[in-house]
Amino acid sequence: MKASYNRLTEARMRELQALMAHRNFTVDPERLNVYSHDEVSGEKYRFLPDIVLYPETTEQIAEIMKWASKNKIPVTPRGAGTGLSGGAVPVFSGIVLSLERMNRILEFDKETLTITVEPGVVTDEIQKAAKTAGLLYAGDPCSSDASFIGGNVAENAGGNKVIKYGATGRHVMGLEVVLPDGNIVQFGGKRVKDVTGYDFVNLMVGSEGTLGIITKIILRLVPLSKYLVDLLVPFKDVETAIAFVPKMITQAKLLPASIEFMDHASLTLTGRFLNSKLPYADAGAHLIIELEENDKEVLFDEYVRIGEMCLKNGALEVFVADNRNTREKIWKARKAIAEAVSSFYPEFCMEDIVVPINRIPQIMEKVGAISERYQLETINFGHAGDGNIHVTFLNDRYTPEQWEKTVEKALEDLYRETVLLGGTLSGEHGIGLKRKKYLSAVLSPAVLELTRRIKAAFDPTGILNPGKIAD
Amino acid sequence: MKASYNRLTEARMRELQALMAHRNFTVDPERLNVYSHDEVSGEKYRFLPDIVLYPETTEQIAEIMKWASKNKIPVTPRGAGTGLSGGAVPVFSGIVLSLERMNRILEFDKETLTITVEPGVVTDEIQKAAKTAGLLYAGDPCSSDASFIGGNVAENAGGNKVIKYGATGRHVMGLEVVLPDGNIVQFGGKRVKDVTGYDFVNLMVGSEGTLGIITKIILRLVPLSKYLVDLLVPFKDVETAIAFVPKMITQAKLLPASIEFMDHASLTLTGRFLNSKLPYADAGAHLIIELEENDKEVLFDEYVRIGEMCLKNGALEVFVADNRNTREKIWKARKAIAEAVSSFYPEFCMEDIVVPINRIPQIMEKVGAISERYQLETINFGHAGDGNIHVTFLNDRYTPEQWEKTVEKALEDLYRETVLLGGTLSGEHGIGLKRKKYLSAVLSPAVLELTRRIKAAFDPTGILNPGKIAD
Repeated sequence: MKASYNRLTEARMRELQALMAHRNFTVDPERLNVYSHDEVSGEKYRFLPDIVLYPETTEQIAEIMKWASKNKIPVTPRGAGTGLSGGAVPVFSGIVLSLERMNRILEFDKETLTITVEPGVVTDEIQKAAKTAGLLYAGDPCSSDASFIGGNVAENAGGNKVIKYGATGRHVMGLEVVLPDGNIVQFGGKRVKDVTGYDFVNLMVGSEGTLGIITKIILRLVPLSKYLVDLLVPFKDVETAIAFVPKMITQAKLLPASIEFMDHASLTLTGRFLNSKLPYADAGAHLIIELEENDKEVLFDEYVRIGEMCLKNGALEVFVADNRNTREKIWKARKAIAEAVSSFYPEFCMEDIVVPINRIPQIMEKVGAISERYQLETINFGHAGDGNIHVTFLNDRYTPEQWEKTVEKALEDLYRETVLLGGTLSGEHGIGLKRKKYLSAVLSPAVLELTRRIKAAFDPTGILNPGKIAD
Repeated sequence: MKASYNRLTEARMRELQALMAHRNFTVDPERLNVYSHDEVSGEKYRFLPDIVLYPETTEQIAEIMKWASKNKIPVTPRGAGTGLSGGAVPVFSGIVLSLERMNRILEFDKETLTITVEPGVVTDEIQKAAKTAGLLYAGDPCSSDASFIGGNVAENAGGNKVIKYGATGRHVMGLEVVLPDGNIVQFGGKRVKDVTGYDFVNLMVGSEGTLGIITKIILRLVPLSKYLVDLLVPFKDVETAIAFVPKMITQAKLLPASIEFMDHASLTLTGRFLNSKLPYADAGAHLIIELEENDKEVLFDEYVRIGEMCLKNGALEVFVADNRNTREKIWKARKAIAEAVSSFYPEFCMEDIVVPINRIPQIMEKVGAISERYQLETINFGHAGDGNIHVTFLNDRYTPEQWEKTVEKALEDLYRETVLLGGTLSGEHGIGLKRKKYLSAVLSPAVLELTRRIKAAFDPTGILNPGKIAD
């Protein structure tokens, strides 16, 4: 789509501001700067908006979109800004529409096991609300203490429980959406199933704010398992740990809630960041395996069985974390890796490749070769049980120009190898601005053409989050 | 879409037939008649095709679609013809494209726990293949011994295990699709998660053959539970049985694999059809509750607990079926209801409404009132655990004209009440030809407009399964 946009002239600016009650906007350059980027590193992923709006109601958003459509002003919706692909960055400036003030839990309906929320609710809050009623909200991105549920839906966030429960989209039963022309529509509802027309709910999920603004979300909750245990399993090297993952999944005859992976470099980094160490800190790699059951003895039998499988397959030890403190310590280490990276390395490139689970060993081999080929300091961690590895290149030696060129070559190789193994660019972080130019490596021209047509079906004037997926 | 189509002139017919190897087509009027309808009753849902094609490869389908696009000839894809909404009926004649010869299981990949199949494979075969490896294909429509997996995907078939495992779409990881213009595209793959562009997999699921022809399906398998038990639970009346369903779901703290419902009239009908009786055959209603676990004792504890809940909530008795024979007898009765209906009643109208689970008691009350209002003999059965009830009107008294008018009024009332309770027209049977005119009762003009645009994005000439959902 080659859309051309209008500028926010002074007159337009006054019109727009008049739409916002209680001066719910900012044009303060320092504040605008905060909204110019997400968690992707690099100046080329920064774009200043002209104005940031903080709507508080669906109706306000409808008014804004109607006005923006008429005036051809780009609108980029934004959640907590914890994105990892530049999805919420206003490439063509204009309006950033922040959902941070739409942060209410609207209804906790115990009769239908659903929770209805606004997009600006922090994901953790939903998890906590569900838990108090003995229920589970199974979406669990590592950023859950900061990211908004709206962003989780827009990116189809994955996280730590996908292997058993599926990614965020699996839990979404219904959505209220403001279309680019300002129309307010309802997709789905509090219904376990629905084939009344096309599946717009799942089309919105993972569409990265390019099709409509999500203003209300109905999530399904499931029963919370009574007992939970985490196994922390060190291995001598990455190869041994990773070779075990598909083996465990196919042989365990059960679905663990999580199978997470951290290599030695990841663990060292997060340990340094948190100033705390996990056992066997010098092991080549660690797995975290989470199991859950409603029966204590069954859980015990399971973890003994899985633990024995680990030991037979090269584990150095199996640590059983069955109390909250130890469990939290393990997960803190795992969840802090991304933050540790950005705090120690001003320049880094965190990837999100996903391959069929039996291809994890091969892709890790290729990653090793690529790191060596381009002399890139690399850490690897991620959701091994989903075949989803966050290969992360760290800049510890290059000038910014060298770094950019080198990473670009490394990414081309990485994506090529991933696709050859039946994998794809992103499992949960999305395409955003960062991976846009690589889309054609995985999607055929016919699929790219369909993508553009779907975008045009929702957003004929192309004002919504331009410069992303379909453009 | 107001498309106008060309006729299959003799010259065109010769061209088309030349595309088909080994004379894989028929123009024999008797054969054509078989492809003029599905399982929906009523002359108005019958349309004769001009020709039926039996392609054997994706490439052949691509050739057919290319030719049909160029010549503007309608193409209606068709699976086993077990549909319940007239979705596979060739409203504008032209070509019926039968997938019955694309019936191979292409790969059973135990390393990724996936099975890749052609659309013409009978669903049962997939279930059986999975089972031999200790795995479960969790799609389980009542028609699984006859329906094709392609049709299951196209309708997002539900069935008996949705409450725990989700409908068919939940198990689809990837699709090969021939677009209306003949382009062959791949959506998804053997990947547990994927946010690389829009979710075309779920857009295809439930699109009822209006967006593309599904030619290959990658399905996810899950571990098969070791132990399984079915509780057959008679209640004195429908009200008591139905009031218990949402209560059980919210209080049981576990997800049963199934919660099915049959009223007295359904059970009598299927009993007469099978010439066999379930216990308490004169009870007002029965529930079937299926539980599964990997541990025998845990399963025992569970069914004792659920059984006690049943008895506390008005069950007359709880029969425990823990051996295959008894279990099969129960499920045979449940699954034969639809066939029993069509064998005893030349005219009937089987509905597929779905409401939020806590609204099942209210909708059943409304159904009672509607049946009375229009003097319609009615049986009710279905997937109570999903809020999905197959309200079925039977013609035991009206002339065809009276019947049609009466049913039309009853449906209007039924849909209105369903929507008022937060429900919708179809949970698993689809819109097809039968419910098309009622779509506007649930989808707003803006959503209907989006629907038309999505259709046009995939099928700009409107040749694919015209006269359905989006037209």
